[in-house]
Amino acid sequence: MIQTKGRASIVYENPPRIIASASIVGTKEGEGPLGHLFDCIEKDPKFGKNTWEEAESELQLRTARKAMEKAGLSEEQVRYLFAGDLLAQGIATSYGIMELQIPLFGLYGACSTCGESLGLASMAVNAGYAECAMALTSSHFASAEKEFRFPLEYAGQRPLSTTWTVTGSGAFVLAAADSAMAKNAHVCITGITTGKIVDYGVKDSMHMGAAMAPAAADTIYQHLTDFGRTVEDYDQIITGDLGSIGQKILKDLMLEKGVDLGNVHDDCGILIFDAETQDTHAGGSGCGCAASTLSAYILPKLQRGEWKRVLLVPTGALLSKVSFNEGQSIPGIAHGVVLEMV
Amino acid sequence: MIQTKGRASIVYENPPRIIASASIVGTKEGEGPLGHLFDCIEKDPKFGKNTWEEAESELQLRTARKAMEKAGLSEEQVRYLFAGDLLAQGIATSYGIMELQIPLFGLYGACSTCGESLGLASMAVNAGYAECAMALTSSHFASAEKEFRFPLEYAGQRPLSTTWTVTGSGAFVLAAADSAMAKNAHVCITGITTGKIVDYGVKDSMHMGAAMAPAAADTIYQHLTDFGRTVEDYDQIITGDLGSIGQKILKDLMLEKGVDLGNVHDDCGILIFDAETQDTHAGGSGCGCAASTLSAYILPKLQRGEWKRVLLVPTGALLSKVSFNEGQSIPGIAHGVVLEMV
Repeated sequence: MIQTKGRASIVYENPPRIIASASIVGTKEGEGPLGHLFDCIEKDPKFGKNTWEEAESELQLRTARKAMEKAGLSEEQVRYLFAGDLLAQGIATSYGIMELQIPLFGLYGACSTCGESLGLASMAVNAGYAECAMALTSSHFASAEKEFRFPLEYAGQRPLSTTWTVTGSGAFVLAAADSAMAKNAHVCITGITTGKIVDYGVKDSMHMGAAMAPAAADTIYQHLTDFGRTVEDYDQIITGDLGSIGQKILKDLMLEKGVDLGNVHDDCGILIFDAETQDTHAGGSGCGCAASTLSAYILPKLQRGEWKRVLLVPTGALLSKVSFNEGQSIPGIAHGVVLEMV
Repeated sequence: MIQTKGRASIVYENPPRIIASASIVGTKEGEGPLGHLFDCIEKDPKFGKNTWEEAESELQLRTARKAMEKAGLSEEQVRYLFAGDLLAQGIATSYGIMELQIPLFGLYGACSTCGESLGLASMAVNAGYAECAMALTSSHFASAEKEFRFPLEYAGQRPLSTTWTVTGSGAFVLAAADSAMAKNAHVCITGITTGKIVDYGVKDSMHMGAAMAPAAADTIYQHLTDFGRTVEDYDQIITGDLGSIGQKILKDLMLEKGVDLGNVHDDCGILIFDAETQDTHAGGSGCGCAASTLSAYILPKLQRGEWKRVLLVPTGALLSKVSFNEGQSIPGIAHGVVLEMV
């Protein structure tokens, strides 16, 4: 029996297994605290291509191929691809995964897309629509700066509240619990909580942690309510890319709701860079931040049994260059995914 | 039993019902052949707002509210929203539907998003993840021209191969077949075929029909193969926005595959405008084209029993301003949705 829980959550009766994952990042990420954990660190920021956008497409394609290679699967065996990126009209994805020829659901949830893609892929697999599906997201520092702020050539100054967009991609191959593909896989998605848009009126695109923290708080609180759980039911609650300032805001907002995140909370944006030595200010961000950290750091911790249950909450800031220039606020959204060992 | 069919299709065991839909369009669409069928025709192209983007957000919000009103439902009764538009980072959707506070899956499939959203919403409802879900898409002539070509103030000349982006939005409320909500609804989604990206190398953003026709051909052919059906099994096969030139290319491509679309094919872009008198050249286009035509024209034909089974294939051109300026081709994607009377 599928159980819908509360307003925004689902508990799976046959939790889909994550049978393989891959992460590919750039040099700066490779020099960070998680550097030794990624599958590949690419030295060429252009990934052998001519433009930043093509570079991100190549990054996404290579990561998808790496995940399929690790799963021992061909493109034909992956029934659906749920994928997205940060660029206008999702071009990193469209041009990147074209040659895979897998039926595609294109997604946009800003940096929350990693959670959105895992949510929809697990819904499809659990329901029997696919024996196997892939969730795939990416971001690239240079394409994102160009897309949302200024081209790198302007050498714009970055205030301390900014985050540094991760050059990275993460791909996740999900298979049905009863599939032969899943027989050696022990990490599964046991449920999801789908976020709604939350806007506290933040207008500073150099302060994304503040823009997204209210959405993260909303989704985490909704999740705990829907599931009837407390923070103590989780080894870790890990947001996507709030960074160090966003983390403080999240903790304050949760305290206002009567929930103390204590030492259970972490953030992929804080984990992926050493802000002290890498000059990344508030932390890492981007669709590739949560995705590469999940693949390289979080899933192995679950596989080794160090953690039993993690709530991953990728967070997205729903602005565009146009909305920013027109003076609009920056609404946030966050999608929760429950990861457990079986 | 859920049946996955062939490479890219699903047949639903409990076909979700479309319990209500709504369409709101601009004046030009209101003056077209379907003008008398839309729920509302808004005279103010800015929809009472200050910018084209805010206008499209308002259009999408009003259409969502209209569909819920027709269904007799409040926001709280709609479990999930599957929505998107054509603008960078989907801002028409994000800012438009924010106040509904419905858990959101943000989508991007260019003008195919109407098909993608109906596909995912029907998957969710059929699987029991939601008693009720909404699919919602929009486009606006002025925001789209600004996004993909030139601001209107430039008064750019339009070649005869161009299509005219529809100012319009369509919203569809889906409910589970066994839900009390569905007891008076007779049109359902019996299956879907999910498209993959197809690129024939077209680089002219003023010739979108040519860019998208190969994807439409691929999805229609895949659909017929997966379902073991022929063109004669459909009263109509209706693409999203190929326009008159794209229609010719589609028919030629299908003939190459041994399939004669004969008189069964139509196209929302051809249906929505009178190209002779409305100066729209090849036809209408945009996320709102297929969506508003489906709500105003196609669903009523099914409800009245004039058609028994229709294959709707919204088509999308996956370009951005950046990919175009960097000399990239324009890949296409098309998602098929089978609509039937029960």
